[in-house]
Amino acid sequence: MANSKYEYVKNFERENHLLPSCYILIRVDGRGFHKFSAHYEFAKPNDAAALQVMNQAAEQMMRQFPDISVCYGDSDEYSFLLRRNCELFERRESKLTSTFASTFSALYQFYWREVIPEKPLTVERLPTFDARCVVYPNAEIVRDYFRWRQVDCHINNLYNTTFWYLVLHGGMTTKEAENRLIGTLASDKHEILFSQFQLNYNNEPEAYKKGTTICREYSVVDAIEGGMMKMELSERQKQREEKKRKKAKVVVHHTDIINDKFWNERPWLLQ
Amino acid sequence: MANSKYEYVKNFERENHLLPSCYILIRVDGRGFHKFSAHYEFAKPNDAAALQVMNQAAEQMMRQFPDISVCYGDSDEYSFLLRRNCELFERRESKLTSTFASTFSALYQFYWREVIPEKPLTVERLPTFDARCVVYPNAEIVRDYFRWRQVDCHINNLYNTTFWYLVLHGGMTTKEAENRLIGTLASDKHEILFSQFQLNYNNEPEAYKKGTTICREYSVVDAIEGGMMKMELSERQKQREEKKRKKAKVVVHHTDIINDKFWNERPWLLQ
Amino acid sequence: MANSKYEYVKNFERENHLLPSCYILIRVDGRGFHKFSAHYEFAKPNDAAALQVMNQAAEQMMRQFPDISVCYGDSDEYSFLLRRNCELFERRESKLTSTFASTFSALYQFYWREVIPEKPLTVERLPTFDARCVVYPNAEIVRDYFRWRQVDCHINNLYNTTFWYLVLHGGMTTKEAENRLIGTLASDKHEILFSQFQLNYNNEPEAYKKGTTICREYSVVDAIEGGMMKMELSERQKQREEKKRKKAKVVVHHTDIINDKFWNERPWLLQ
Amino acid sequence: MANSKYEYVKNFERENHLLPSCYILIRVDGRGFHKFSAHYEFAKPNDAAALQVMNQAAEQMMRQFPDISVCYGDSDEYSFLLRRNCELFERRESKLTSTFASTFSALYQFYWREVIPEKPLTVERLPTFDARCVVYPNAEIVRDYFRWRQVDCHINNLYNTTFWYLVLHGGMTTKEAENRLIGTLASDKHEILFSQFQLNYNNEPEAYKKGTTICREYSVVDAIEGGMMKMELSERQKQREEKKRKKAKVVVHHTDIINDKFWNERPWLLQ
Repeated sequence: MANSKYEYVKNFERENHLLPSCYILIRVDGRGFHKFSAHYEFAKPNDAAALQVMNQAAEQMMRQFPDISVCYGDSDEYSFLLRRNCELFERRESKLTSTFASTFSALYQFYWREVIPEKPLTVERLPTFDARCVVYPNAEIVRDYFRWRQVDCHINNLYNTTFWYLVLHGGMTTKEAENRLIGTLASDKHEILFSQFQLNYNNEPEAYKKGTTICREYSVVDAIEGGMMKMELSERQKQREEKKRKKAKVVVHHTDIINDKFWNERPWLLQ
Repeated sequence: MANSKYEYVKNFERENHLLPSCYILIRVDGRGFHKFSAHYEFAKPNDAAALQVMNQAAEQMMRQFPDISVCYGDSDEYSFLLRRNCELFERRESKLTSTFASTFSALYQFYWREVIPEKPLTVERLPTFDARCVVYPNAEIVRDYFRWRQVDCHINNLYNTTFWYLVLHGGMTTKEAENRLIGTLASDKHEILFSQFQLNYNNEPEAYKKGTTICREYSVVDAIEGGMMKMELSERQKQREEKKRKKAKVVVHHTDIINDKFWNERPWLLQ
Repeated sequence: MANSKYEYVKNFERENHLLPSCYILIRVDGRGFHKFSAHYEFAKPNDAAALQVMNQAAEQMMRQFPDISVCYGDSDEYSFLLRRNCELFERRESKLTSTFASTFSALYQFYWREVIPEKPLTVERLPTFDARCVVYPNAEIVRDYFRWRQVDCHINNLYNTTFWYLVLHGGMTTKEAENRLIGTLASDKHEILFSQFQLNYNNEPEAYKKGTTICREYSVVDAIEGGMMKMELSERQKQREEKKRKKAKVVVHHTDIINDKFWNERPWLLQ
Repeated sequence: MANSKYEYVKNFERENHLLPSCYILIRVDGRGFHKFSAHYEFAKPNDAAALQVMNQAAEQMMRQFPDISVCYGDSDEYSFLLRRNCELFERRESKLTSTFASTFSALYQFYWREVIPEKPLTVERLPTFDARCVVYPNAEIVRDYFRWRQVDCHINNLYNTTFWYLVLHGGMTTKEAENRLIGTLASDKHEILFSQFQLNYNNEPEAYKKGTTICREYSVVDAIEGGMMKMELSERQKQREEKKRKKAKVVVHHTDIINDKFWNERPWLLQ
């Protein structure tokens, strides 16, 4: 509204407009969640209620930002994929990272109070998240990104499961458990769980082993008719397509996204 | 922890390390607060409780981030100045913007529930904030930045006060009030308030006219001895200085920061 | 080699590593060539000798930088395409732009003295070029880039040809010729040339109408066997492929690159 | 001039506008000058003619770019300081780096042919230079930048002088000379030169020991009256100041720029 001789200070602002026609991936990551989870006494290796809070926050993100086509999360992180031609905030990096970090944090706090009312949050230990944008030029690399995160989830969850069984049921200190696992392969950890604790890791909940994938679902026919799979749309087609996106069902999966099956069945996700 | 053949996707990440020896200014700004304030029925022109939430959030930011030397806010925005040699998050832009946006949002929601429990937040209308970093090379421009924000506060508050008096006490529609104010000078608005509503604008609360400035306070002697005013410190001196910063009193002002007086009395703020 | 307490000034250097797996396009552009061509009395509308200097410089660029797969130029500009997985200078933007600008300028001056020895260069009017990098995520957009440049060449050459016929053979001042052409379509210009000067524009030299495209040529079999068309190669395959690239024939064309034919016949160019 | 449906490819271009109110330092650096100097058989440790070419090129840069206030060079590099409020090319990084690299290369080739006509340049070994911009927020760091380069010159020249005396006059192979110098201090190298070759290093030419500094000279009175030392000038004052800059004497020094004397006597250089 106003003008003053001090307004020249605006000339120092810089915007980074992310490269057009590329996928934008925004990853939010819990800040200091090691201490946070200790402070609020998370169950180990996985706290079902805390994961529910994460997943509800992510699902609500999908509703509030129709440009997200799919997201994947585990532990204290979530990765959101924006569709290739998305123009949200004119693709300005700071606006995207700060808004996603802010909104996810707000939703997490909101759902925490709903899901875990017995653990009131204190002002010194509020849940907060940082965020970063990464730009990917093509669909194959985007698939590899999600494969990377799911492999990571798998490795971490197997480690954590074994570690905490050794500590909680095997009588080891955390230091001893750590040393016990140095140099062990996946097969060794399976063996420890099975022989020592009669736990078949393969029977652990899919949500823990595979993390959570949330996407918009259409029938392929609908996706084609809706224009989800075309690069170039007229203005009117764009509006119709956006409407369709906003009204699409948002569905939660705990499934393999390393193989092609998941992606091939939903070609609109990487359009 | 883990390695996989997909890890190459990390090579697409980019970091912007903000220029060393420059001041970093981080401004957080309410997202869609026009609608937000309508939804939660803010008092007009100023809602004392909502401003209290903003100010408590900002004060808590100062406690959680000792690298902030001073901050200034009004309406739905706050500007945080990080000291020149600050190494927070290695000066990475995305980490700074996302963390400040996230933490401020978390604090705002937290204090809202304490200060305004009678207005429960709904998931579709949570308070969120974006953020941006701006880099300034010297103290004089930083002063001009804060002058710019306070001039802006003044202009907006005078406008809003007059506008809402015309609407709430003058029987105008918002459209009529808008038209009435087109082309008016500051003196015209003072005159409207005085002649029509017997309001002397100069007697309005300082917090509304001047916004809120929060800074760490020392005696000048303490600041000098603590090393707040030196550029180069040994490692041990740095640690002593940091400790001093963490323990300093955080003080809230509603005062003029356009003139030099405020800054000259606190030379450590722009060191 | 050396170290000193002043070396901290290196911390202010910033590198922009261009996004991996994307095509890099480097365009060099003559600085002040309007005045340059007037000073050295270029023939109008096209100076054959000066264009030869441009083209020889570009051809030599292809020999000195085997990462260039194809380039296109007309007038005082040339666009060089680096292959998608090129690691030249670790994809550092400043290194790429400055090296291309420098090398092209050096070559231009060198060939000028060979081709046009009768016009000695003066120190105040040396030929210089600026450069910029642009990053493109996929082959279709790269094709559109080259289409854009060739359409531009066509439009400019038709305009310049008509303009200079009006001036040199039609007795108009440059101002009159400019006014004559305002608002004219391509067909109008063809008509002026034909009716007034008996010139059939379609018979003008291809080099002027289509610009110059230079690329490495292989048989398709060779390209496949050489690994030019695979994304992922072992280290040994990479070396073999690089050798092949260095030894490939560099061929100059004045041909249509707007249609798909040129590109479809040389699939390795956009691999 | 022209428009086409392909013009969208321009949207992928990015500009980096360097931070206002900061000094811009552009360093050009010979590409592969180790091989270049071997190919053209430079005298060792210093080739007077080749250094003259460098210095004439730099001096001409000062004439062609009045925004350069001072430059410093030795060996195959030169550092150009642009004044703080310089608006050359709207402070666009690519334009600055590419233009400086291009112009310096063009000038070097030009003067080479004048100064060293007996060594004709070949197309495979033309002299080329890369360039980079660095942004510095204040004068003290800029001074340290130049100190850094001059300390570097000193260390390199002492090393090279000793190294080449051992090889050319001491009968060592280059490998033996290298080994002889490992772990030696400056004083050791002075001692080798003196005891073995009766060379007092301190009597070596200042141009080799101190490098070359070129700056615009005014009397202090002139600088003050000309407005060289003010930050804020009216439009008319700016024009007068620019005129004065263009007409100022450009003077070459081989002198100490580590101590404050040089800078204190020319306060306009860092204004």
